[in-house]
Amino acid sequence: MPTSYRVVQYGVGPIGQSCLRTLLSKHQSIELVGAIDIDPDKVGKDVGEITGLGIKTDVIISADAEAVLRETKPDVVVHTTSSFLSRMSDQLVQCVEAGANVVSSTEELSFPYHRHPEISAALDEVARQNGVTVLGTGVNPGYVMDALAIMATGVCHQVSLIEVNREVDAGLRRFPLQLKVGAGLSTDAFEEKKATGMFGHIGLVESLRMIARAMDWPIDQLDETLECIVSPRRVVTPFLTVEEGQVAGIHHYAKAFIEGNCVISLDLKMFVGAEDPRDAVYVHGDPPVDLVIRGGIFGDTATVATLINAIPLVVNAPSGLVTVADLPVPRAFAAAWST
Amino acid sequence: MPTSYRVVQYGVGPIGQSCLRTLLSKHQSIELVGAIDIDPDKVGKDVGEITGLGIKTDVIISADAEAVLRETKPDVVVHTTSSFLSRMSDQLVQCVEAGANVVSSTEELSFPYHRHPEISAALDEVARQNGVTVLGTGVNPGYVMDALAIMATGVCHQVSLIEVNREVDAGLRRFPLQLKVGAGLSTDAFEEKKATGMFGHIGLVESLRMIARAMDWPIDQLDETLECIVSPRRVVTPFLTVEEGQVAGIHHYAKAFIEGNCVISLDLKMFVGAEDPRDAVYVHGDPPVDLVIRGGIFGDTATVATLINAIPLVVNAPSGLVTVADLPVPRAFAAAWST
Repeated sequence: MPTSYRVVQYGVGPIGQSCLRTLLSKHQSIELVGAIDIDPDKVGKDVGEITGLGIKTDVIISADAEAVLRETKPDVVVHTTSSFLSRMSDQLVQCVEAGANVVSSTEELSFPYHRHPEISAALDEVARQNGVTVLGTGVNPGYVMDALAIMATGVCHQVSLIEVNREVDAGLRRFPLQLKVGAGLSTDAFEEKKATGMFGHIGLVESLRMIARAMDWPIDQLDETLECIVSPRRVVTPFLTVEEGQVAGIHHYAKAFIEGNCVISLDLKMFVGAEDPRDAVYVHGDPPVDLVIRGGIFGDTATVATLINAIPLVVNAPSGLVTVADLPVPRAFAAAWST
Repeated sequence: MPTSYRVVQYGVGPIGQSCLRTLLSKHQSIELVGAIDIDPDKVGKDVGEITGLGIKTDVIISADAEAVLRETKPDVVVHTTSSFLSRMSDQLVQCVEAGANVVSSTEELSFPYHRHPEISAALDEVARQNGVTVLGTGVNPGYVMDALAIMATGVCHQVSLIEVNREVDAGLRRFPLQLKVGAGLSTDAFEEKKATGMFGHIGLVESLRMIARAMDWPIDQLDETLECIVSPRRVVTPFLTVEEGQVAGIHHYAKAFIEGNCVISLDLKMFVGAEDPRDAVYVHGDPPVDLVIRGGIFGDTATVATLINAIPLVVNAPSGLVTVADLPVPRAFAAAWST
């Protein structure tokens, strides 16, 4: 079935540019028809230039989202502008009202019902009215700490506790991520900045709520904790150096309880110098499931892949606001067996 | 959402009995309304007796499938009568025409389109006409060597080869399975019986075809091989003893190619004395994914769980013949966090 999807990229920051490169590489299955960004340095430029591909695509970045959507009539908008739903739900409504399905990297959109019930209800309503589907996804939230954990329970007839442990070597990741986890700060500086809400993974509680919904578990208590990880040694990355005793990164975890029993535990460590990076799901159940992705999933690449791979799934899904738990098993899309 | 599904168990062999025990344990979510089997030793008996639970359920096993289906009007039939579709597709049609969704353990039904195109088309048609869904699933086929492999590619934007390696310690499994893999035979006896088609895992090619379809890969060559594994030492199980040099079990593998390149490799070893049982998926791609379920998934329990867990998914799915790749991510159903 040689289908080609008409796609608009909404947001041309680092993740958006990476999406554009992937979209352009799948030219037999995807027709890139537009790109939206408000950055004056980008507006008017060809996406082939801004992405560093050095090609001419004739897709010119525009700040006029409404005009781009109206003129290009995309099947799907790949949306990468913000982690926070309240800052940009208008953008999603705009896409939906133009008749486009949306795949968004917005972490809070991955399971928005609890933190933003009004926005969620409104988005679901307008998506249904327009016969399109809206999805928030990515590698985390959207895969490692929610969809994969849910999938792991699929062979169990009894489950008492779902544990997900993700350990990421931030030293291998992009520079902004190393800064985002506080690498190289003193512990005092970390605590000061932490108070401003600058650190921490966005979406951990969303992942937890998604699992609870899939299991139909009535969570009555939820604890969330963010701490720094102090480096036990000097670590040098391509971008910075962390001295012994300085902050290496973050330890962010959340636990859900029912009647005092911990039933879901999500534990995320992102720090430079991690010696055993991995994504692990342990289902305490019958039968137990001890699943590990050795080395972990490389997030910078995988987040983009996860967004693009969702394109055919949202096009074929029933209309409305959905989560990855509502859609068919994720799978690579237009992943040529050979290049 | 406290939904209770009306379920009929069709087939009360060992797997069917195990399904019945699980169905009866989920009494808040499942109402067992009927049981069908043609075995004269079972007909007329209470399922609470036949399953060894020693309880009275008032669900009496009947050989009259048509009457049971008509009188009980189940939402879902859990069907466990045969591995082979051509032997029992009439049973599936009967369920569907009674307005019931079907979850079946029939291995050939997990991806029936290639081996049985006419039966598949007819089943799909009658399921759509009756507004119900038909699914073949289990732990393998249905999960380890297909759905999980597809899921593993969901974070990749490029994939060149998908490898699944399942190594099962048959010594820990039920006696019939130990016999089914030829444990304790001489290699000559194995080869003789192999010629009669008695050995081998059913569903390996179905798993492979399901992955190929999900990846939209035009497979042009498919090789399937079945060999015996010779035991390098004496192995004693609760049921039998394998001497050094006797058959320990089977090595069954299948490979799919495109233009001479191997793109899918499924490798299954089931033998007594396996020292490193595991289910492993390796996706050669960008990013690569190295996923392993340590110890492997315990099949005897998991197959039943997989069937029961699919009940709400088939009830909520669009009508027709489907595969696990068409449905939402598998998840435990009515898996109480505490008993």
